[in-house]
Amino acid sequence: MRERHIGASCKLFFKSDPLKIVRASKQYMYDEAGNEYLDCINNVCHVGHCHPAVVKAGWEQAQVLNTNSRFLHDNIVLLAQKLSSLFPSKLQVCYFTNSGSEANDLAIRLARIHTKHNDTIVIDHAYHGHTWEVLGLSPYKHKSRDDLPDWCHIVENPDAYRGKYTSDEHADLGTKYADEVAAKIAEIQASGRSVAAFFAESIQSCAGQVFLPEGYLRQVYKHVRAAGGICVADEVQCGFGRVGSPHWWAFQLQGEDIIPDIVTIGKPMGNGHPVAAVITTAEIAESFNKSGVEYFNTYGGNPVSCAVALSVIKVLEDEKLREHAKEVGEYMLEKLKEMSNRHSLIGDVRGIGLFVGIELVKDRVTKEPASAIAQHVIFRMKESRILLSADGPHRNVLKLKPPMCFSKANVDSVFALLNTVLTEVREVKAEHIQSAVHALMGGANGPIRGELRQTESCRINSSKPPAKKLRKI
Amino acid sequence: MRERHIGASCKLFFKSDPLKIVRASKQYMYDEAGNEYLDCINNVCHVGHCHPAVVKAGWEQAQVLNTNSRFLHDNIVLLAQKLSSLFPSKLQVCYFTNSGSEANDLAIRLARIHTKHNDTIVIDHAYHGHTWEVLGLSPYKHKSRDDLPDWCHIVENPDAYRGKYTSDEHADLGTKYADEVAAKIAEIQASGRSVAAFFAESIQSCAGQVFLPEGYLRQVYKHVRAAGGICVADEVQCGFGRVGSPHWWAFQLQGEDIIPDIVTIGKPMGNGHPVAAVITTAEIAESFNKSGVEYFNTYGGNPVSCAVALSVIKVLEDEKLREHAKEVGEYMLEKLKEMSNRHSLIGDVRGIGLFVGIELVKDRVTKEPASAIAQHVIFRMKESRILLSADGPHRNVLKLKPPMCFSKANVDSVFALLNTVLTEVREVKAEHIQSAVHALMGGANGPIRGELRQTESCRINSSKPPAKKLRKI
Repeated sequence: MRERHIGASCKLFFKSDPLKIVRASKQYMYDEAGNEYLDCINNVCHVGHCHPAVVKAGWEQAQVLNTNSRFLHDNIVLLAQKLSSLFPSKLQVCYFTNSGSEANDLAIRLARIHTKHNDTIVIDHAYHGHTWEVLGLSPYKHKSRDDLPDWCHIVENPDAYRGKYTSDEHADLGTKYADEVAAKIAEIQASGRSVAAFFAESIQSCAGQVFLPEGYLRQVYKHVRAAGGICVADEVQCGFGRVGSPHWWAFQLQGEDIIPDIVTIGKPMGNGHPVAAVITTAEIAESFNKSGVEYFNTYGGNPVSCAVALSVIKVLEDEKLREHAKEVGEYMLEKLKEMSNRHSLIGDVRGIGLFVGIELVKDRVTKEPASAIAQHVIFRMKESRILLSADGPHRNVLKLKPPMCFSKANVDSVFALLNTVLTEVREVKAEHIQSAVHALMGGANGPIRGELRQTESCRINSSKPPAKKLRKI
Repeated sequence: MRERHIGASCKLFFKSDPLKIVRASKQYMYDEAGNEYLDCINNVCHVGHCHPAVVKAGWEQAQVLNTNSRFLHDNIVLLAQKLSSLFPSKLQVCYFTNSGSEANDLAIRLARIHTKHNDTIVIDHAYHGHTWEVLGLSPYKHKSRDDLPDWCHIVENPDAYRGKYTSDEHADLGTKYADEVAAKIAEIQASGRSVAAFFAESIQSCAGQVFLPEGYLRQVYKHVRAAGGICVADEVQCGFGRVGSPHWWAFQLQGEDIIPDIVTIGKPMGNGHPVAAVITTAEIAESFNKSGVEYFNTYGGNPVSCAVALSVIKVLEDEKLREHAKEVGEYMLEKLKEMSNRHSLIGDVRGIGLFVGIELVKDRVTKEPASAIAQHVIFRMKESRILLSADGPHRNVLKLKPPMCFSKANVDSVFALLNTVLTEVREVKAEHIQSAVHALMGGANGPIRGELRQTESCRINSSKPPAKKLRKI
């Protein structure tokens, strides 16, 4: 039925053996047979699947009124006021949308109207959403840079582990990578074009769970503003306290003086309910208003969406989930660092709060991505009912972005199993892995993105047993 | 608070004296003081505000599971299957989104990928949504045609009352207006460009509640397909049975043989909950799939959105609301025709089911739009707690698109009051109206769109008393 009626472009997790989840609560999901899965990846159901307070808030409002924002209503104002209070005071005007994609789409529009410029700068491998224009600033979704529109300019992913400049070889990566942005701006201007905006997730997610190096945004924002552009922080995946207290937003990791001109928020905001927003300055909002074009979003800011979002923020505060994220995140990082001493497959671990990446490599010196092994690990974890996923251009970075109630005991379960699986991988002969991976991946098509080709499957050289490699380190 | 925190580009109804609605049920809304308003315009809360069955369906599912469509779930398949069953059998593949704008945005993408062409043809004054690319095919949102992108080509609004060809002067308007599309295609091709899609609402809404003339789509679709383009029917405002039984979709009014290649649906689909969809053919879905780019919409097709949409369809069926819309719509048209005999201000009445337009003119011969009078009527109706609105390029077309449970008694109330207000207008001296309108409209800015200039305010010539004009007819 799904094959007949749902577009095949909508991919499932675990394509060869997809999960049918029928129920979820907190950080757990349950299949038809009642099996419990630990959810390490759902960054939408932020305060826990089906959180009763959030469900109740939506339900109560839905019974009373759910109309568009053409009428005055307390909820939209209360939410805007609450959100503004979580941002630096300059960011005070909200526009409500139904998805992060709609929010980023509107951000492009605001940037162009305000600056009267057209072009954008984005980080390589970035993903900002699925509308036509937003796809134009999402290198992640294009097979070739040539497929991107001419107004989109890509700068290096400031990846300290695998990027153009690495922490092994360079000090002050922030300046190194910011200089790349300055050079790109010069190039854009030399070609007679102009920069409307610099768009960046405050932590690169699809691009491989990459944290911005210290000082990066401070310098980039200076360069962009000097060119008459504005700075957009995409917090759709990393916002709402995921990075742990004291912060609400990941851009704050770059310093209290870092204030974007526009912030876009989404996924976690409704704990699954479609609600998202753009927060900007009074000046940018005024430019938009002066353009004379009304912005009307039928469902955006409706009383139910606002009630749900208000409730999510309240739960984050009442249950001290940012503090919890900080504590569990620190515990997780510590455990991960220990584990990386035991497994040479782990090339890098990085994380803040409940936003963690584990980069798997075949060789710590060459850093050859262990893409197929990452897929194998994910499938083995799933067999044992732990849901993980991988991202990054090589799909070799295991990601953990669990609901915010994820516990230390959950960390222990995940890492105990991960330890077992990585040990197995080390011990099993390469050819066995290769055939197992092939079967698990369901043949020529990758389990999630068709782009992952079979040519990327396991290439561990059986003449170099992994055990030896381990000893090298 | 709203002024400080909500972008001023988000406009309120009745700006000078906005309504604060706190509760709604069926076709009624209630303000803070408990005053009841009859809602004649909310085409989102389709089966009635806060319909208990729909609220319950959303609430029950939200308690159990609300995750993304990466996992198998019955609801998404059941909804896709149900929707497909409401369309001609060729339309069988669904993509779920959160808004009509996202649906139309995806439709552009599908059209371009499938046809390998780029340009679109749209009807003048059309509105298809608020994302960047969709704004590009929404002449309604642009002050000048020059502001539209070069890939968007406008054809005449096939308006039998006020268009280039009118039913007074021409027979076979369908052919006349379809020939305009053929000519536009020739022009596009002569300039070395190519047509990806013809986009049209199946009834023009923002463009003035305009019904397509008989035979229009049959011929247009032929021309567009001959040029290698595809045909998109935007049913976001007019779909889901609003036109009355036996139809589910307004494109069906053009004949059972009319089958669009893509249909987009939205607003009424979730009765206020953000859910929308694209329905297309297996061939177009396959072209999209072959492009190798995954389509992932975080909330699109989530179990709650699907449960809500399934429930809306069930209520439409259980409560026989399409049959009801047909019956009440016929009654309304009959009453309106009677009333137009009494009021020369009514230039034209048109409607099918619960999609009705009443075009106000200052003079039936010149058809000069009575834009300010329309605003005056709306404000007077609101004073008596009936919510109406106006649309069309001159904003002189009163529109009625009420929840589907709107009754004959509601029709009687609306038309009794409308009769009173139109009689007042006829009797009051023009200069009085002019100052009253000015005050009611809150000064130089129109109540809803800033574009409505004061220069459009009432220009009834007091030397020609309306009473005389009435006798002329």
